[in-house]
Amino acid sequence: MAQQHLDPTEPMAKTVTGDALAGYLRAQATEFLRALRQHRETGAGGNGSEESVDAARALRRSARRISGSLHTFRPLLDPDWSEGMRPELAWLSGTLALEHACAARLERLLNALHRLSGSPTLPAQSTRPAASAPPAERGGGNLTVGAAKAGALLDRQLTLARTRAHSAALQALGSSRFHAVADRVAVLASEVPLTPTATTTDLRPLATAAEERLTDAVTALPLITAGHPYNAAALIHGLSPDPSPHSQDTPWHQVRLLLRLHRYAREVIEGADAPVNVRLLAAGQALNRHRDASEAATAAASAARTPRIAPATAYALGVLHADQRHEVEAARFAFQQSWQKQKVTTP
Amino acid sequence: MAQQHLDPTEPMAKTVTGDALAGYLRAQATEFLRALRQHRETGAGGNGSEESVDAARALRRSARRISGSLHTFRPLLDPDWSEGMRPELAWLSGTLALEHACAARLERLLNALHRLSGSPTLPAQSTRPAASAPPAERGGGNLTVGAAKAGALLDRQLTLARTRAHSAALQALGSSRFHAVADRVAVLASEVPLTPTATTTDLRPLATAAEERLTDAVTALPLITAGHPYNAAALIHGLSPDPSPHSQDTPWHQVRLLLRLHRYAREVIEGADAPVNVRLLAAGQALNRHRDASEAATAAASAARTPRIAPATAYALGVLHADQRHEVEAARFAFQQSWQKQKVTTP
Repeated sequence: MAQQHLDPTEPMAKTVTGDALAGYLRAQATEFLRALRQHRETGAGGNGSEESVDAARALRRSARRISGSLHTFRPLLDPDWSEGMRPELAWLSGTLALEHACAARLERLLNALHRLSGSPTLPAQSTRPAASAPPAERGGGNLTVGAAKAGALLDRQLTLARTRAHSAALQALGSSRFHAVADRVAVLASEVPLTPTATTTDLRPLATAAEERLTDAVTALPLITAGHPYNAAALIHGLSPDPSPHSQDTPWHQVRLLLRLHRYAREVIEGADAPVNVRLLAAGQALNRHRDASEAATAAASAARTPRIAPATAYALGVLHADQRHEVEAARFAFQQSWQKQKVTTP
Repeated sequence: MAQQHLDPTEPMAKTVTGDALAGYLRAQATEFLRALRQHRETGAGGNGSEESVDAARALRRSARRISGSLHTFRPLLDPDWSEGMRPELAWLSGTLALEHACAARLERLLNALHRLSGSPTLPAQSTRPAASAPPAERGGGNLTVGAAKAGALLDRQLTLARTRAHSAALQALGSSRFHAVADRVAVLASEVPLTPTATTTDLRPLATAAEERLTDAVTALPLITAGHPYNAAALIHGLSPDPSPHSQDTPWHQVRLLLRLHRYAREVIEGADAPVNVRLLAAGQALNRHRDASEAATAAASAARTPRIAPATAYALGVLHADQRHEVEAARFAFQQSWQKQKVTTP
């Protein structure tokens, strides 16, 4: 791991070249293989033990970093290799992410239902077995009939989705497609296919380009509206006849991905020991919260379209949908606040 | 109208005595009688012409001011007279307010439904005849089935309530109880029953006491929470099994009334030509919005308990309820903001 470090306190820091990229990719590939081994040891067939959840998270984490670096620093890498690699990594991290997303979404929605009912929040759900008692029986029961039924309905639907995602992930991890990816990552851990000129090429213009793509996308966001609390913009199509997810969320999701690419590029340039940029972290967390609330709101709206539900259930799901759309709005406000701070301190 | 004026720019402004109170009460009584005449001329049986609505508003306005001044400056007035007068004025302004409140609540809820459906807002509803086409047909129709049905249900329920309130107001204005109040106000327009010492008593300590009651009540509000945008406090019992209106709103409603008494006391002390205190006005408007949104949220929740409604209707009412509870939260934030400003500029 002979990475070159960019000292952020030194104004004329020396050039960072393809060697740093190779070091970063090797380290991430090693981490990927470690997580994969851990995942197999803790029971690939397991139904969500803590170690297995951690291992899956570490797998996704390194897959995202490898894939992101391949994208940002494309000109320094063998094009056939990197163009073949990226979709496979995207497929893998997407497949692995789904199970976790379903569990987290259910936990978010049940916690919100309990908050809205004025009862204490549930303990974290993410590590509980997929099949368990419905939330009304679990949660300490101060829910109205509508809230309890809504919780049970969401539990049923999202647990089913989670079980399917779990099977799909297991199937993926046993597939020849996955073994091919793992083999390529194993090669990457020792040998990075750089272009002949990569070791003398400065990485920083490519990292800067990634930052500029982020800045441009942020500039296009409605940040002035987002900076005014209670602008009621996120719920504006809450009862629209359009059944598709809120299209107003798309540019924010896009910024979330670009922010991640920017963060990974910084990791490559600055090395593993570089201090965490707290404001970038806060902005990223706000965008994660935005995405989670957006998807939870969609899940509540979708559950409300289940045939033959009771009006009280539908009412509770309507309140829940609106609550999560306000979480979307709150997350945009939080992003705007952290982004403004960033501009002040980074001249 | 020989009122004594307190020059706010003069530090040692001269004493304001019972004469100023008498002048204020005479002026408000005259205004009451003028509005009553106008109300009769524009058709007491009318179903909401603009003049008749204005006249009813002016009647309520002066009734509130007389009643409030009787309360704040009680020691300067004949106790038997003022204790007999206040409940009658409260009954009158309460009865007259109800029709307007129903119309305004319906307008607020239909506008919110249209905003939530992403369609243009409706024109103001307050002057339309009580019986008219349901909102789905009126509004330009980009509503979902659920939103349209929710709008029609609210229209039916609140129009019925408004019609009843209209009849009750007409009945009240024709009652011997009302004629007795009107007679007493007519006497007040020429002769205010001050105590023997009132014309040499300083009003300002009583006005200050009214201000202190306001300040104490504001201090007890959860202003720190309210000042943090998106605190999600207003919806916290949105699905609570407790069917009563949100008890967390009560102290805010109380501050709204105390702020009004403080404003009227200032009017007495400073005279009719005194400059409007913009911040006090903004704080009062925020509390009016708080009250309106709180009552609209309750109306949506109550409509959702109508037997045999469709799940889509109940869902839309749930979204609407949560939307109005967020309006409650937004109004608290607005109040906190204007109140903070006030503290800064009034040392």
